This record gives sequence, structure tokens and C-alpha cells, in this order.
Amino acid sequence: MGKDKVQIFDTTLRDGEQVPGCKLDTEQKLVIAKRLDELGVDVIEAGFPISSPGDFKSVHEIAKLVQNATVCGLTRAVKKDIEVAAEAIKIAKKPRIHTGIGTSESHIKYKFNSTQDKIIERAVEAVSYAKSFVEDVEFYAEDAGRTDNEFLARVCEAVIKAGATVLNIPDTTGYCLPEEYGAKMKYLKENVKGIDKAILSCHCHNDLGLATANSIAGVINGARQIECTINGIGERAGNTSLEEVVMILRQHPYLNLDTNINSKLLWDTSRMVSQKMGMPVQPNKAIVGANAFAHSSGIHQDGVIKQRETYEIIDPKDVGVNESSIVLTARSGRAALAYRAKKVGYELTKVQLDSVYENFLKFADRKKEILDEDIHQIIEVSNIRIQSIA
Amino acid sequence: MGKDKVQIFDTTLRDGEQVPGCKLDTEQKLVIAKRLDELGVDVIEAGFPISSPGDFKSVHEIAKLVQNATVCGLTRAVKKDIEVAAEAIKIAKKPRIHTGIGTSESHIKYKFNSTQDKIIERAVEAVSYAKSFVEDVEFYAEDAGRTDNEFLARVCEAVIKAGATVLNIPDTTGYCLPEEYGAKMKYLKENVKGIDKAILSCHCHNDLGLATANSIAGVINGARQIECTINGIGERAGNTSLEEVVMILRQHPYLNLDTNINSKLLWDTSRMVSQKMGMPVQPNKAIVGANAFAHSSGIHQDGVIKQRETYEIIDPKDVGVNESSIVLTARSGRAALAYRAKKVGYELTKVQLDSVYENFLKFADRKKEILDEDIHQIIEVSNIRIQSIA
Repeated sequence: MGKDKVQIFDTTLRDGEQVPGCKLDTEQKLVIAKRLDELGVDVIEAGFPISSPGDFKSVHEIAKLVQNATVCGLTRAVKKDIEVAAEAIKIAKKPRIHTGIGTSESHIKYKFNSTQDKIIERAVEAVSYAKSFVEDVEFYAEDAGRTDNEFLARVCEAVIKAGATVLNIPDTTGYCLPEEYGAKMKYLKENVKGIDKAILSCHCHNDLGLATANSIAGVINGARQIECTINGIGERAGNTSLEEVVMILRQHPYLNLDTNINSKLLWDTSRMVSQKMGMPVQPNKAIVGANAFAHSSGIHQDGVIKQRETYEIIDPKDVGVNESSIVLTARSGRAALAYRAKKVGYELTKVQLDSVYENFLKFADRKKEILDEDIHQIIEVSNIRIQSIA
Repeated sequence: MGKDKVQIFDTTLRDGEQVPGCKLDTEQKLVIAKRLDELGVDVIEAGFPISSPGDFKSVHEIAKLVQNATVCGLTRAVKKDIEVAAEAIKIAKKPRIHTGIGTSESHIKYKFNSTQDKIIERAVEAVSYAKSFVEDVEFYAEDAGRTDNEFLARVCEAVIKAGATVLNIPDTTGYCLPEEYGAKMKYLKENVKGIDKAILSCHCHNDLGLATANSIAGVINGARQIECTINGIGERAGNTSLEEVVMILRQHPYLNLDTNINSKLLWDTSRMVSQKMGMPVQPNKAIVGANAFAHSSGIHQDGVIKQRETYEIIDPKDVGVNESSIVLTARSGRAALAYRAKKVGYELTKVQLDSVYENFLKFADRKKEILDEDIHQIIEVSNIRIQSIA
């Protein structure tokens, strides 16, 4: 292949689970973690061990279970957090500690009542301490999206020296535009001494609907890890959707970037997470929404029937969906009606189709969706012409 | 202000309503059209008049009702379509016909079995014919996202000559990356003779989760209209979300672009459309999802309580939401618990808080969300210390 690998860091069980109403018990988390491992994610962020005894237990059990992925635990830049996380993940085949601190002016001033130099000191201390437990230490510069690039580069340089293997550049508030976020990655790639010793990671939030675009801008500009969740769940408007970034890279081969994800498991994994968290996926969600591959307008249906690629760029089978569903509504045209009629046993001539279509529209103006049984009825209503078909 | 205006072309009632299961009757459409007019959209695409008698009627009634916005009807590049649309909208204060044809290789070859020159001929004929009924004619180059830029520029030049006032450049399959879509707009802006006589319009689909980012890239590169829907509804993964593009422009004043939208009506309009169409909005939807302004993790809650701007960039009031809701879960920290306890009547000292917090975590590990009544119970359980507060 020769494509550059983008690591998929799944945080469904940490940033995703932080959602009002989405709490999972340990058993549910284990089922999801097993599936994420099968899906081919590179890192599973399993939780925030210090946050509660239940969370500690879940991270520990996941660390025991997972076969392939790195298992990661979140901490603040606080010794006790790091000790507890280290304890929770130490049994993992590939353990990682994810520690960090806020670096934007707003965070330094209002949250920590501190200064830039002291923040760097705390960041370095946290990374060094985490390094005393595990080799693989990821550092997050919280609110990096609103952090001055020059200071951010200083922070990155300092934590790389302290041994950080991954640098997470979160757009915590979901504020960045893709150009800005991409430019930030580029700046770090070009200005941080020792940057080749660490992987830059995108962690974007979707408050303005830009998490996916920002993550893609990030990897185009040198990042090699994306932090994301199944269905884009997460606090507020959520995180980057795993399924979206994975399929964007697959659909744009000229970017020369790919992931280890087995995309055929995406649809089923989406359903599993939605069900266990009680978090509905809206029908118009990209890739995994119920309508993602459904065509109802006449113009589009006609095109798809003639040649799938006219309207679809993803083969539904590639994400685990069996067939694009052609849904009949008042917006459907003759081609779609004829296609469906044929499927249920009627081969209509052009003249016959005209007559049936007229009745179809009357039905469809009253009903939201025309089902197979309705087609039999519609054809019965248009009886004179249709009898001649049989 | 001095900001450049971006026109909002709402197609909730046309491209949005083309969704399986979302059909609205005329009365429902009128209620939504009235609201869109109040919201401040510049254009309401009311339907596709030739598609069914019900749709014709709806477009006609909307044309009668709407006070401020332009009312637009969709057509194919077909005389009969244009005549019927002209009839449906002629009563509007500001009528527009939206006609067009596929321009990508795939569309020309598979859908029309035609050639580039014949497609240009049909495009020009359609625009000229529409011009015989109304002054304001928008042309769409279907699948422009996958159309070669040079040919696309030829099409644009020809239809401008024929009188087109708006050029719609749809990314019909939702395939483009923001950089590509922006570059396409830039190319047209720089290479189409007479481009200043027409407005370039973004019409993006969300198949890869990029509709919003592509539309923003479009206006940054010279487009001055965005076609979008409430809640991003539409076929497959839907259209660009109106609420997202509007708030992105508001939140990035340095872009020097704005719309006429009264953002305080966004939340309520989202609910109205979702309810009438029976299309749920997922809780993690940007701007209008139920969780869009909810904070549940301890770290975030602590920050928000200290200073809203630490984690939120949009004031919820600006989109019609009354207050950020602080939801208590096992991921909430002491600050959030203390804040909520105070709201229900308990002023806790630091020592008291430690004890109550321990009991809170036990509760929260069992319950998805801690409500006010639970707080009374939790404080009762931690009785010895709490009695001293009262």
C-alpha cells in the first residue's frame, strides 16, 4: 500500500461516556471494548480511573481483556491521578497514560490561576511521573485550539523532552475552523524541536459541526492520530465521529493516509454503542444513520438504479449495510416505482406505468412511505390496464 | 457593520422533505414556511411543483403566505417543469425558479447519455425559458462537486449570459473535502466571465460529515449563498445544517461575513421541524441537540462554573436556550456537586463536601443521572456532618 498510517484513538468509553445519561456499567464497557478491539482501533481510552471506583474497575477489566489495542487511562496533571491510572492499566499488554493540563490563556487564568511557566513545569512533572510507570505517555494541552501557537510549541517541546510519545492538541471548545486547526498542526510540525520523536494527535469537538473537518485538516498537515468516538458521541455536541474520518480517508486515496479499521464492522458497532448507551443516532447521521444510504427522490432513485456511483460514493457493503434501500414517497419518480413494482412481481410497460404512477401519487400524498403491500393495492386500483400484464 | 452578507437559502421544505418518512402536508408546510420567514432566511425553496399535485399546492400556498423571503420552486431542465413551477410561484412577492442539470461525467454519461455541448445547450435553454416567467433564476450544476472545473466554468459562463442570477454548485454526493470545494469556488470566481453578475451558491451534502465545513470553505472563497436545512435534514446523511453555518459566521467575526438570521429562534425552530417531520435530532447534534450546552464531567463543570467562556463559546441564550444545564453523573466533580447542592439549599464546607461527594459517587455509579431529589437523599445519608449545616 505504502500509505501513511493514521492511528485511531477511540474515546467512546471515556469522552463519549461522559455524556448525560450515557453511563455504562463495567460489563457493558467490556462488550464495547472487545468490539473496538475487533474493529481495529489502535488505542482504547478506557476511562478516567481516579474519577470513581466504578470507573477504576472498568479500566482495569478492559486492560485485562483487550488483545490488540493499546489501553489508555486519563489523568489530570496530578500525582494521585497518575498513580491510580497506572494501577488500573498496568495489566494491559500495551498500557498508555494520558495526562495533561490546560494551556490557553482562559484556562491558565480562570481555571488554574497560574502562569505560563508554571503550567509548563506542571506539564513536565506530570509526564515525567507518568513515564516512571509506563513507556507510552500521551500529553494533552487542553484548549490547545485557543492556545497561542508559540506558547503551545514551547509546551510541546518541553513534554517531548520529558518523554511524551504522543501530543494531543485538543480543540476543546470546538471553536476552530479547519484552516486554523490545520495551520496549528503545521506550525507545531515545523517549529517544535524533537517533534519527530512524538505523534501529533487531533482531538476535536463538534460544537460548530466541524470536528470531522478539523481532524482531517489535522492529518493532512502532519498529525498521525485522531481521537474519536463511535457515532460522534461525547459531551455537548460530541467528539469527532470515528466512522466519518475513517471513510473520508478511504474515499480519498490521493491523501495517501489510511487506518487499520475494518470498516465492515462500522454499522453494527454503531448500533451496539447506540443501544447500550441509550443514545439515538439521527436518521441523517453520516455513514451510520438509518437513511445514510436511502434514496427517496425520483431524480436520485433514477440515477442510482441506472448506476450506483451516480449518487453514492460509498458502497454500503463497505460499512456493513447490505443494500441501499429505495424508499418510495411522493417524491419518488416513475423509475423508482417501476423498480419496486418489478421487485414485487409486476413488469410494467411505459403506458401502464403512467397510469399506476398517477394512482401512486394520490396514495403517496396521503402516506409518508409506500410499502410493498401498498404497491399491490395501487396496482389493483389501476385495474383495467394492469390485468393485461398478468 | 460593514460585513458581507451571506444569503441563507433554506431548502427544508424541498431537499429536506425528500427524506423517507418526512412528508408534510400543506398545512404543516405553511407553519414551517411562516417560521422560516420570521427566522430571517433570504430564500425559501418551497418544493418541486411538477413532482406531485400535493407539492404544487404547497408551493402555491407558501408563495401566497410568505412576506419577506424569496419563494423558490425547483425544476429539471424541462419546459413542462418550468411552466408548472412558474405557475406555482407567480403569486409570490419575490419569485425564483431553480432549474438545472447534471454536469459531471458520471451524470452526463449514465443519467443523460449525452455530451458536454448538449448539456450546455439544455442548460441555456432552461435558464432562458425560466427567464421568460421570472427575473430571478437560479441554475444548479448537479454533481458540480465531481465536475471538472474547466467544464463547470463553461457552463456557468453560458447560463450567466442566459440570465441566471444565482449559480448553485452542489456537492451532490457529499464527496468533496473543504479544500477542494473552496478551491472550486475560487476557480469559478476567477475564471468565469461575467461572474460578478451572479451569486455563487453552496449546496453541500453530508455523506462524509463535511457539509458544514464545505459550505464555510465556499463562502470564504467567494460564494455568497448557502443552501441548507433546519437540523441538517435531507436525503441520505442530509444537507448543510442552517444553524451550524449561521453560528460559525457569528462566532468568527474576522471572516467578515454574516447572515440575516435571528439566531434566538434557532432552538425553537429546530424543535418545530423535528416534531412536524417526526425526525429526531440526536442529543449530540451541534447547536440544537439536547446536550449541546450540557456539561457533565467534573473538569468541565468546574471550569464552566468559574467562567462560562472556559468551555463554552456560544452563549446558549443566543440560540434561544435559557441556561446551560449542569447534569450530575459519576463523572461530575466536587465543584459541580457543590454548585447543585447550593441551588437546592445546602451550603457545604470543604470537609462536608468531601463526605457528601463520597456518597454521591456511590449513588452515581448506580444511577445514570443525579437529580435534585437524589441530592436531598444523598445529603441525608451523609447525616452526621450535614446536620451541623442547618
